[in-house]
Amino acid sequence: MEQPLVGIILGSTSDEDAMAPCLGELDGLGIPYDLIVASAHRAPAKVAAWAHSAEERGLEVIIAAAGKAAALPGVVAAQTVLPVIGVPMKTSDLGGLDSLLSIVQMPPGVPVASVAINGARNAALLAAQIVGAAHPEVRARMRRLKEEMARA
Amino acid sequence: MEQPLVGIILGSTSDEDAMAPCLGELDGLGIPYDLIVASAHRAPAKVAAWAHSAEERGLEVIIAAAGKAAALPGVVAAQTVLPVIGVPMKTSDLGGLDSLLSIVQMPPGVPVASVAINGARNAALLAAQIVGAAHPEVRARMRRLKEEMARA
Amino acid sequence: MEQPLVGIILGSTSDEDAMAPCLGELDGLGIPYDLIVASAHRAPAKVAAWAHSAEERGLEVIIAAAGKAAALPGVVAAQTVLPVIGVPMKTSDLGGLDSLLSIVQMPPGVPVASVAINGARNAALLAAQIVGAAHPEVRARMRRLKEEMARA
Amino acid sequence: MEQPLVGIILGSTSDEDAMAPCLGELDGLGIPYDLIVASAHRAPAKVAAWAHSAEERGLEVIIAAAGKAAALPGVVAAQTVLPVIGVPMKTSDLGGLDSLLSIVQMPPGVPVASVAINGARNAALLAAQIVGAAHPEVRARMRRLKEEMARA
Amino acid sequence: MEQPLVGIILGSTSDEDAMAPCLGELDGLGIPYDLIVASAHRAPAKVAAWAHSAEERGLEVIIAAAGKAAALPGVVAAQTVLPVIGVPMKTSDLGGLDSLLSIVQMPPGVPVASVAINGARNAALLAAQIVGAAHPEVRARMRRLKEEMARA
Amino acid sequence: MEQPLVGIILGSTSDEDAMAPCLGELDGLGIPYDLIVASAHRAPAKVAAWAHSAEERGLEVIIAAAGKAAALPGVVAAQTVLPVIGVPMKTSDLGGLDSLLSIVQMPPGVPVASVAINGARNAALLAAQIVGAAHPEVRARMRRLKEEMARA
Amino acid sequence: MEQPLVGIILGSTSDEDAMAPCLGELDGLGIPYDLIVASAHRAPAKVAAWAHSAEERGLEVIIAAAGKAAALPGVVAAQTVLPVIGVPMKTSDLGGLDSLLSIVQMPPGVPVASVAINGARNAALLAAQIVGAAHPEVRARMRRLKEEMARA
Amino acid sequence: MEQPLVGIILGSTSDEDAMAPCLGELDGLGIPYDLIVASAHRAPAKVAAWAHSAEERGLEVIIAAAGKAAALPGVVAAQTVLPVIGVPMKTSDLGGLDSLLSIVQMPPGVPVASVAINGARNAALLAAQIVGAAHPEVRARMRRLKEEMARA
Repeated sequence: MEQPLVGIILGSTSDEDAMAPCLGELDGLGIPYDLIVASAHRAPAKVAAWAHSAEERGLEVIIAAAGKAAALPGVVAAQTVLPVIGVPMKTSDLGGLDSLLSIVQMPPGVPVASVAINGARNAALLAAQIVGAAHPEVRARMRRLKEEMARA
Repeated sequence: MEQPLVGIILGSTSDEDAMAPCLGELDGLGIPYDLIVASAHRAPAKVAAWAHSAEERGLEVIIAAAGKAAALPGVVAAQTVLPVIGVPMKTSDLGGLDSLLSIVQMPPGVPVASVAINGARNAALLAAQIVGAAHPEVRARMRRLKEEMARA
Repeated sequence: MEQPLVGIILGSTSDEDAMAPCLGELDGLGIPYDLIVASAHRAPAKVAAWAHSAEERGLEVIIAAAGKAAALPGVVAAQTVLPVIGVPMKTSDLGGLDSLLSIVQMPPGVPVASVAINGARNAALLAAQIVGAAHPEVRARMRRLKEEMARA
Repeated sequence: MEQPLVGIILGSTSDEDAMAPCLGELDGLGIPYDLIVASAHRAPAKVAAWAHSAEERGLEVIIAAAGKAAALPGVVAAQTVLPVIGVPMKTSDLGGLDSLLSIVQMPPGVPVASVAINGARNAALLAAQIVGAAHPEVRARMRRLKEEMARA
Repeated sequence: MEQPLVGIILGSTSDEDAMAPCLGELDGLGIPYDLIVASAHRAPAKVAAWAHSAEERGLEVIIAAAGKAAALPGVVAAQTVLPVIGVPMKTSDLGGLDSLLSIVQMPPGVPVASVAINGARNAALLAAQIVGAAHPEVRARMRRLKEEMARA
Repeated sequence: MEQPLVGIILGSTSDEDAMAPCLGELDGLGIPYDLIVASAHRAPAKVAAWAHSAEERGLEVIIAAAGKAAALPGVVAAQTVLPVIGVPMKTSDLGGLDSLLSIVQMPPGVPVASVAINGARNAALLAAQIVGAAHPEVRARMRRLKEEMARA
Repeated sequence: MEQPLVGIILGSTSDEDAMAPCLGELDGLGIPYDLIVASAHRAPAKVAAWAHSAEERGLEVIIAAAGKAAALPGVVAAQTVLPVIGVPMKTSDLGGLDSLLSIVQMPPGVPVASVAINGARNAALLAAQIVGAAHPEVRARMRRLKEEMARA
Repeated sequence: MEQPLVGIILGSTSDEDAMAPCLGELDGLGIPYDLIVASAHRAPAKVAAWAHSAEERGLEVIIAAAGKAAALPGVVAAQTVLPVIGVPMKTSDLGGLDSLLSIVQMPPGVPVASVAINGARNAALLAAQIVGAAHPEVRARMRRLKEEMARA
């Protein structure tokens, strides 16, 4: 299972710390991923190209994290039929309410699956649930994880 | 393709009108679904049983719609490793901000994929994107839908 | 008065510090309680069983504290006819507005009695007011406490 | 069971319609109540006297409904050791967020049990849960109600 | 000018630091005041008596500071025909939005003059503007202060 | 008592309906006022001149009503040492939260006394309380009004 | 002056009514514009191409109106060095707060000039102020408009 | 290019740190500016005079930064036909939501171009985009900056 299944895109290098638990969770579940940092506003062509080719590169789900007027998840979703998980980054002034509304309130036609503000770990688990249909070993690991949580 | 792929659960019969576009979109995409109305608070055992058996009943993704202190999507997600899409219902007093925060702000360990307030249509499209991996004909329809939207 | 009258349930061990004043106040009032930590989302069966048997275990009121999409108080209330007091935990991004709305905006049929964000001490006092009807010595202590506050 | 168990106080006659479901629910549960309309701001002495004598008049729990800068539940709670349930009234400008925060964010020492904005029916059910400890027939009715909701 | 013109009431000793600029400003303007700390919820009789006798004690305006479900300014205003200035205290969870709405959203019949969250200095200046009508020396000082600000 | 004591300024003719109760209340209390409509943004020189000369024209207090980015009360307060009462107008999108924050959150040095959103009647009563110090007949009427409210 | 100076792009045909005052104001000022309807999410390539060529087509400023997770103004701004004015559309659930934050909270590097929720007319006036530098006749008309407003 | 093109006005010296990136960006782009600190509320005449003469002093665009009830940008815009960029300052209690709404929600007739809370750098870039029409060397620099961002 070398081929990346999950594509992760961060709007800014300043999102890397908050998103570290996402990478850790995917590693723990043995799900390969690739990762780029690219802003929907500063590098639109790069983002569009990356998202547009995501499906043919073999990705099955995308995780996009961004803060403030967080257009990134929606801009990625505009370019692909893969499911896109949006992670609203906490902001220093409005606590991330701006990021959340910019990600979750998508207009009809192009969905984004939003998780909580700074919900990095849940983004990984949701990605695992999505790829689980085609990857029984991932689903089995999710099942074990769920049982462990119930016992903890 | 008779077997339901998507399980839809509404917290209240009062959510049926707002969720009608979800059913319409799934019908248009030819995705079979089943639907129940059951409140996480008023009928917890029914909800838990329905969610717990969802995977073995052959469902691949769940859509849960609820309003106010909208616990339903999270309560369903607690019982299954299937991906759960939450649809926050608009409320007459706070506009649905209460429903949205109750659905999207899930604690680590149990993700819910939130769409917009009253985002019924996008819930269907997100479900289609998720089942698309294993159902190429659904993915193909999503691709056509995306092309039509771009031309419209 | 050995039999616990108040059952306290916390959604996470991270809520223990914020809830310490609740335990202190109950201790001060001489009201016995038991306490568990169990997440409505990560350990739903444990929570349901604990809540379902609360009345027959002799509890008279329940205090449930949780943060973010704080389903715990409502999930507990769904399983019992005992009064349930919800304590919304302060959150680092939205200040606890998410916890508050997830707890207080309960749909008709299953009430939760919400106190303030991080209102641990008032949760204990409210519990004391509720058990006071059947426990005159608790009511008497509440009366003295009220008089002391007025003099302070 | 003629003696009123629940005292209901409304901050304004304009709250009567929104609170009608509360009276209906108490009637259905066979719980006697008395009701006055008195504003904490316009008739403070009347409110204080009513609340101060509530316990000796035989009341076991109080329901106080008010809107905007809704001081009424807290002002009543300041005068009694009975549990006080606050019902924040929906407002035409801020949707009731003002009423909710004015009721639920009580400072330590004087608790108010807040239900949802316009949560009239749940206020009655919460009152029934509270008086249920000393009135087994009320608790029995609550249990039946809960079973009916689960079946509905 | 020994007789206090301004009565200051704080809901809690924890408000003293935030209100220090109010005292400083009144001192600078040479306006005598008296000050008590008394909670509307914990010491209602004390607050009511203090407010009720404010006019006959010679006070001309009242400044009331409180946080969270900040009933104090309204409770004071209910007892007097003197103008009452409310100062919403910043809170650690909601930033003072709760205090602000609890103070400013007064229902018709009993006004409170709200200044900004933690607006201690402006409360003093507003009090000076109000007593300025009857105290020309205060008005003259306010005029000088205004000219100094314009030059600064 | 012919000389206007209260100056009323509205930011827009669209505020006239919402402010009618203010005029009615002043009429009922026998307090003469003058009224202009002038926008701080569209007619800044007119507003500045009106406010600057308010004191010498014999006014004792000013009521300024405005909506949205409601600069008017603050702009008026910048020009006078008279007390300025701000009335935030309800808005069709944000319910008046924008107007309220634009009026109440004044920076140190220039106070505005904010009443509730659309708090027209309370603006009149607050004005009456302020002019009451120098006009005993107004204070007497306020006292009667307060007694009537307590009896109602 | 036939060549369009202002490019207007709407995210949806449902925005046309709210934006009509923008067109009316530009017409009144004699500023030629062109207009397209294209969603940043449903037709990303069309939007990118339109924005990318805006400068070489002779446009001097762009007005972009969108609602909910309103990515359009930022997506346009990502493709051009022309100034981009964003108009947040009022929404039926959150009043347009979602649109506003999605437009105004742009991350560093790519600015959008936000006007008020549904601020169609001001978008036109701001565009006129921007093109006024190079088009003295437009600036002259703005000056007359300002004088008329001051007299009205 | 010695003549200042951009006029910067800060409501308070406490805004200087947050606005430093604006000056840095203008310096980097080689755009001359002048800067004053003057409060719309404390020094209204100074602000009005500065804004009124801005155009004849050769300025082409204005940047106005202010916090809380941030009237400054609107008050400046009331005095000029130049485009005015408003920068809402982050506040310690409401995070800058108060500043933002006070700046962006301008009523029809007098536009302000709002950037993000503490959006100092974007204010400079927006100013550069606006003066770019008449200053090709600025536009060329903006184009290079955009290309560098896309590569970074």
